[in-house]
Amino acid sequence: MYLNMARKFAREDLYPAFKPMDADAPKLVDGEVKVHPIMHELYPKMAELGLLTASRPPEVGGAELPLTISNIANGYLMAANASAFGYTGLTIGSARLIEAFGSDELKERYMTPMYDGRFTGTMALTEPQAGSSLSDVATKAVASEEGHYLLSGTKIFLSGGDQDFSENIIHLTLARIEGAPVGIKGISLFAVPKKRISQDGSLIRNDVTTSGVFHKVGWKGLPSIALSLGENSDCHGYLVGEAHQGIRYMFQMMNEARLLVGMNGVSTSYVAYLESLNYARERPQGRPIQSKDPSQAQIPIIEHADVRRMLLKQKAIVEGGLGLLGLSAQFADLEAHTTNEEERQHANLMLDLLIPIAKSFPAERGFESNALAVQIHGGYGYTTEYPVEAWLREQKLNSIHEGTTGIHSLDLLGRKVMMKGGAAVRAFHKEVTSDLEKALSAGVPKDWCDAILQALNATEQLTAHLGKQGQKGDVNAMTLHSADYLELFSTLTMAWIWLKQASAAFGKEGDFYRGKMQAAQYWIKSELPRVRQLAQLCESGEDSYEKMEDSWF
Amino acid sequence: MYLNMARKFAREDLYPAFKPMDADAPKLVDGEVKVHPIMHELYPKMAELGLLTASRPPEVGGAELPLTISNIANGYLMAANASAFGYTGLTIGSARLIEAFGSDELKERYMTPMYDGRFTGTMALTEPQAGSSLSDVATKAVASEEGHYLLSGTKIFLSGGDQDFSENIIHLTLARIEGAPVGIKGISLFAVPKKRISQDGSLIRNDVTTSGVFHKVGWKGLPSIALSLGENSDCHGYLVGEAHQGIRYMFQMMNEARLLVGMNGVSTSYVAYLESLNYARERPQGRPIQSKDPSQAQIPIIEHADVRRMLLKQKAIVEGGLGLLGLSAQFADLEAHTTNEEERQHANLMLDLLIPIAKSFPAERGFESNALAVQIHGGYGYTTEYPVEAWLREQKLNSIHEGTTGIHSLDLLGRKVMMKGGAAVRAFHKEVTSDLEKALSAGVPKDWCDAILQALNATEQLTAHLGKQGQKGDVNAMTLHSADYLELFSTLTMAWIWLKQASAAFGKEGDFYRGKMQAAQYWIKSELPRVRQLAQLCESGEDSYEKMEDSWF
Repeated sequence: MYLNMARKFAREDLYPAFKPMDADAPKLVDGEVKVHPIMHELYPKMAELGLLTASRPPEVGGAELPLTISNIANGYLMAANASAFGYTGLTIGSARLIEAFGSDELKERYMTPMYDGRFTGTMALTEPQAGSSLSDVATKAVASEEGHYLLSGTKIFLSGGDQDFSENIIHLTLARIEGAPVGIKGISLFAVPKKRISQDGSLIRNDVTTSGVFHKVGWKGLPSIALSLGENSDCHGYLVGEAHQGIRYMFQMMNEARLLVGMNGVSTSYVAYLESLNYARERPQGRPIQSKDPSQAQIPIIEHADVRRMLLKQKAIVEGGLGLLGLSAQFADLEAHTTNEEERQHANLMLDLLIPIAKSFPAERGFESNALAVQIHGGYGYTTEYPVEAWLREQKLNSIHEGTTGIHSLDLLGRKVMMKGGAAVRAFHKEVTSDLEKALSAGVPKDWCDAILQALNATEQLTAHLGKQGQKGDVNAMTLHSADYLELFSTLTMAWIWLKQASAAFGKEGDFYRGKMQAAQYWIKSELPRVRQLAQLCESGEDSYEKMEDSWF
Repeated sequence: MYLNMARKFAREDLYPAFKPMDADAPKLVDGEVKVHPIMHELYPKMAELGLLTASRPPEVGGAELPLTISNIANGYLMAANASAFGYTGLTIGSARLIEAFGSDELKERYMTPMYDGRFTGTMALTEPQAGSSLSDVATKAVASEEGHYLLSGTKIFLSGGDQDFSENIIHLTLARIEGAPVGIKGISLFAVPKKRISQDGSLIRNDVTTSGVFHKVGWKGLPSIALSLGENSDCHGYLVGEAHQGIRYMFQMMNEARLLVGMNGVSTSYVAYLESLNYARERPQGRPIQSKDPSQAQIPIIEHADVRRMLLKQKAIVEGGLGLLGLSAQFADLEAHTTNEEERQHANLMLDLLIPIAKSFPAERGFESNALAVQIHGGYGYTTEYPVEAWLREQKLNSIHEGTTGIHSLDLLGRKVMMKGGAAVRAFHKEVTSDLEKALSAGVPKDWCDAILQALNATEQLTAHLGKQGQKGDVNAMTLHSADYLELFSTLTMAWIWLKQASAAFGKEGDFYRGKMQAAQYWIKSELPRVRQLAQLCESGEDSYEKMEDSWF
């Protein structure tokens, strides 16, 4: 029911607003951001449909849907209009921080109106001098005698950081309490409202100023702003939870945020794939390569092998990506709700391992997929008359925000596969080998299974090799090829996802299942062989860029 | 002197106009296209500097520079502002058609004012129903008693097809004379002026109407328009050369056009590489991975291995691409000017073979390189405040216009490597093996040379295998993996280019040469191994998309 509702709302309300919002970006007028007027209608609708609390427990008014469901519903919403849904996604993320760590007073004052749809929320993390490096956050917080803190500093890249459709905006802000330790251990989390709630309950302006709007390439319906805190030394902020725990709190919410970005990557390439599929079916151009008789009618371009190649590659990326995101959400649900401790630990390991892949694969290969959707449209794809170019622009953000691909490659290799003595890799081994057995009994071709097993073995050997370098303290050598390692592990993971889909599809009648088998074949035969090549590269420690010096460029 | 002039003009005049032209695209006002006013200054300057005739012989007022020089000069100009130079490039291409095939009268009336900078030229090839399929061109030409033809039809995607800064615009137009054979053998070439030259020499409107302006993603300073010919049955066109020879004429100019697009791909990624290199040197963020002490100052991001990886990959793509384009232009110059027939034939084979690679590699891998330039800029790269996103948009066109990458992959595999019994592949073999010998004596590591030789052998074996399928008449099987084959051949070609550069750099002192060696190592160690994997894939005839049916998607 929830999925159907999301799909219907995405099609009927969000998608029609996509182009207008893309064409008419928010503006800063007299210090206030004006967004596209249609958001005044869309946001209350999203609240009314229960999107803000779908995954939350009944205590805060939610439906307690599994993440598996709510994230796939989010996929529909983001495919239709990532910017419009962005306000909702950010509000959920911000409210959740207060729900998890805030005092009852903060919950009542801020979380409840956020879940009600009256207030929105944003994340105020990045600063000009501290982009990916949160340990360099310098925004200052000084305790006042009234219990609140006075904040001062500058934050940038606040998505939805200002707009004119909600009563209030709550900035979940990382700042450093005077005298706190340097680095990430001295960072605290604050709720900083755009408008404070006065004694009588009325809203009065807090000392937060929108100092600029970034002109983004995509996601144009969702402003990204620079925010000045405390220009007049009167910016009130309220500590969320305990002092110096800000990064820990953020990290506890990070998995969900990263799954959401991963799902955005999937959605943004999935919708473009469908659009290019539709175009390829309708656009006549050229003739079969073996009989180019110009007196014959032209054929739809889907009949050209190279166009089918581009479509099948897209299908493999986007449907495989959806499978990965669905599975990751399942592990998150299992981790949160199972009563079996062994199962919980396994789910926890799998989720942690898959997160950097689920976040990065749809961004990186999805971007490639989005480019193919443009390519299939030919010259038309290069114009704004067709929607595919917009999704290409939107996708590019996903390799940057919520941790760049480079950071996720270090997360995977430097942390996830090495943690707990390699426990996550063992959990992965168990999953894949068990699925290989199932696949063989389902009838999936043995050479597919063999190829996956070999790639798994090569990956494990490589991981052991790199782990030894780490144990010897040579972190540089261990992580030198982290980008290649992420690509390798993602390619293997996707082969596993397609193995699962092939097991379910094998021998079944019907177009849907036949298509699944072809996409699985494509991935295992055309993409998976890259694992061996990447493993050799990583193991060789090829040092061209390690040795490259600044002045040599 | 010419290169220095181009570089100076690019920096001082063209580049400052890039952002304004990107931000303020041409508009259709009362049936006429208004372009950015700065073009009224830039175009006469380009004419005055001799850009229009640099490569032309003295008879038409040119300096007869080698293409090797003029195309590299064009690289500077396009790196600075592809749209502004676009008017010039298109005028050169159009005037050359008249120069090569037109009557003396046409030359005097149209070519001369084009080379003088008074008129501009465009290519009117594409029609709505005939994008990549020129054999479906349907624009009609009917001979009049006065010697001209009356044209009627609709053309689209005319770059620079209308503007308000030149006295006149000459559309080199493909059309079909009444009663002509179907297909490409019935297509003729016409010069269709926007304004006809009347008896007294004054210009009067011809029956050509700008019916629309496409809203492109990039190249925004250069309008792409739809043109209606003969809405009032009075569109005069003048036959260029002989009837039914239009495609042949176009093809004779195509190599140069494709080298220009290839150079554009190189320029567009080269300038972005330099910008991201500069950013990486200046942007402090994070700390060394082996000592993350937050009390220490942050380091410039170029010190992070993964950033150096992204920079070196870009360097390998853009400098390798420049090498390839320079070499291709050399073969073109040799073909045109050598008096040694054997040398001429060799140059002709090499040029024909390299064209699809020189056109497509900078577009495809250049796009990847452009995306890395954005990635290095992090969140800032996703904003229009920094220029890298604009070049990413601009680059996307290069895989589409002047033959899509798919078409070039068929050109390479279906035509170039198979023509004259494989003569081009033998010429390539001779070049590469001779350079391998030189490299070994220069001191280039033997394992680099061995890797290239192995890749060359694998490519030749594969080509022979595919050739046999073609000989058996199975064109489908031969061309099924043409996209993979193009990628394979491009990767090998680039290894050869880097081998040449390594031979020249080996053992030399200085930053420039050290950088060249690292980039060569990167390409040969990290990219070249993909050739073996692609060769296996192509040879296997992997049939996932061949077998994929429309309804299974």
